[in-house]
Amino acid sequence: MNQVLSVIEARSSLRRYADKPISPEDKQAILHSALRAPTAGNMMLYSIIDVTDQAKKDFLVKSCDNQPFIAKAPMVLVFVLDFSKWYEYYRVSGVPQWCAEQDKAMHYPQEGEFLLAANDAIIAAQNAVIAAESLGIGSCYIGDIMEHYEAHRDLFKLPELAFPVTMLTFGHYPEDMERVKRDRYDAKYVVFENEYQELTDAELVEMNTAKKYPEKEDNFGLWMYKRKNGTDFMDEMSRSVKAGIDAWNSYGKK
Amino acid sequence: MNQVLSVIEARSSLRRYADKPISPEDKQAILHSALRAPTAGNMMLYSIIDVTDQAKKDFLVKSCDNQPFIAKAPMVLVFVLDFSKWYEYYRVSGVPQWCAEQDKAMHYPQEGEFLLAANDAIIAAQNAVIAAESLGIGSCYIGDIMEHYEAHRDLFKLPELAFPVTMLTFGHYPEDMERVKRDRYDAKYVVFENEYQELTDAELVEMNTAKKYPEKEDNFGLWMYKRKNGTDFMDEMSRSVKAGIDAWNSYGKK
Repeated sequence: MNQVLSVIEARSSLRRYADKPISPEDKQAILHSALRAPTAGNMMLYSIIDVTDQAKKDFLVKSCDNQPFIAKAPMVLVFVLDFSKWYEYYRVSGVPQWCAEQDKAMHYPQEGEFLLAANDAIIAAQNAVIAAESLGIGSCYIGDIMEHYEAHRDLFKLPELAFPVTMLTFGHYPEDMERVKRDRYDAKYVVFENEYQELTDAELVEMNTAKKYPEKEDNFGLWMYKRKNGTDFMDEMSRSVKAGIDAWNSYGKK
Repeated sequence: MNQVLSVIEARSSLRRYADKPISPEDKQAILHSALRAPTAGNMMLYSIIDVTDQAKKDFLVKSCDNQPFIAKAPMVLVFVLDFSKWYEYYRVSGVPQWCAEQDKAMHYPQEGEFLLAANDAIIAAQNAVIAAESLGIGSCYIGDIMEHYEAHRDLFKLPELAFPVTMLTFGHYPEDMERVKRDRYDAKYVVFENEYQELTDAELVEMNTAKKYPEKEDNFGLWMYKRKNGTDFMDEMSRSVKAGIDAWNSYGKK
């Protein structure tokens, strides 16, 4: 197994960090790796907010579902899907005038561009994760950054064509850290040849009971629903992403 | 520079492949790396369609904006964001009945879950890309798989709570391949400390003229608009993603 495969194999989310800063060289290598990520049409449809302000980290602890370790992470990066720079550049380049001359309606970003830019942002984020891991720096994805759109927009002064799609915390592994490798579903439930296989009820039960969790109730499906989809934070994520898409879709239409 | 960083550094999109199959061992390693990717709450909110059927590859050539190299790729993986398995498992676990007993409306997936699952799917895809690259196997992202939702849904027999968010083609580098490293934007235009920096008109021009492209017209902004956002395929991507989200939002509401 080469270093790449073993780094991928060993990586798991790290929520507790050694009391050790990330060196400027390591930080630069991680950011550089993010920026080398594949990107649609080489457009780099994202921005990265490097959160160094302790007050902002403290805010994120609360706005991201009360996770205190965010405040202690030596490095916090917010990945923002972003078409703003392109549409501002189109403006500078006289595209609206060209469209008017051609008697064409200008195409403004919609859900398609939103998802395309999300792809770009997340691909870059995962490059940062892998690069960091190779340097002995662990990380944790915080999907909760998709909640509270208006508060995060104001916190980071985001324009309409920008939405924070994921956040990563980084830090060195503590010395006393015991790595726990979490189970994943068996590939037969995830990888399908040529077409999607709807699983039978028995297979759905099997796939979930085969994957061990640290703790679960007798009814694992209900336990997960209560912890995940049936929660206030999921309601908020739904509301917030909708609000973000609405703001996105309003660009250029005022 | 360790192997991970150098693999990330060297990788660029590969659209022409050596006439050499991907060995079962390499394929297994790539898929395994995808499945080890970070995932929200260890839920693995995606499926992977391994497209081995030549007729399906030929279909994808046309449905993904006429890119003939797709048909010649030794491995084609479609990454599908997927909440179907969880909601079917919730059904099997009696969650709808529990909600009814509690006099609570069941929470069905909305845009928040769609984007959360997109994150999971794309993180897994990028792990596959990096793993492949470490084995000397190049890859290319095909975002066009987000177009023609209905045709791709039928091609892969996707349920409502599944949407193909990206596709990857894989193959060995041809021997005569000269690697071209494409410019990226300077980090100062992408990485911002603590808050987003709206760029001035001069900076927008500077960032784009500094990044060299293989060919461009005098007005690079207009040239890109005509090639990207102002095209039929972007109109189709907008329509298709909207249709996919509409289907997603209709789950459980019939």
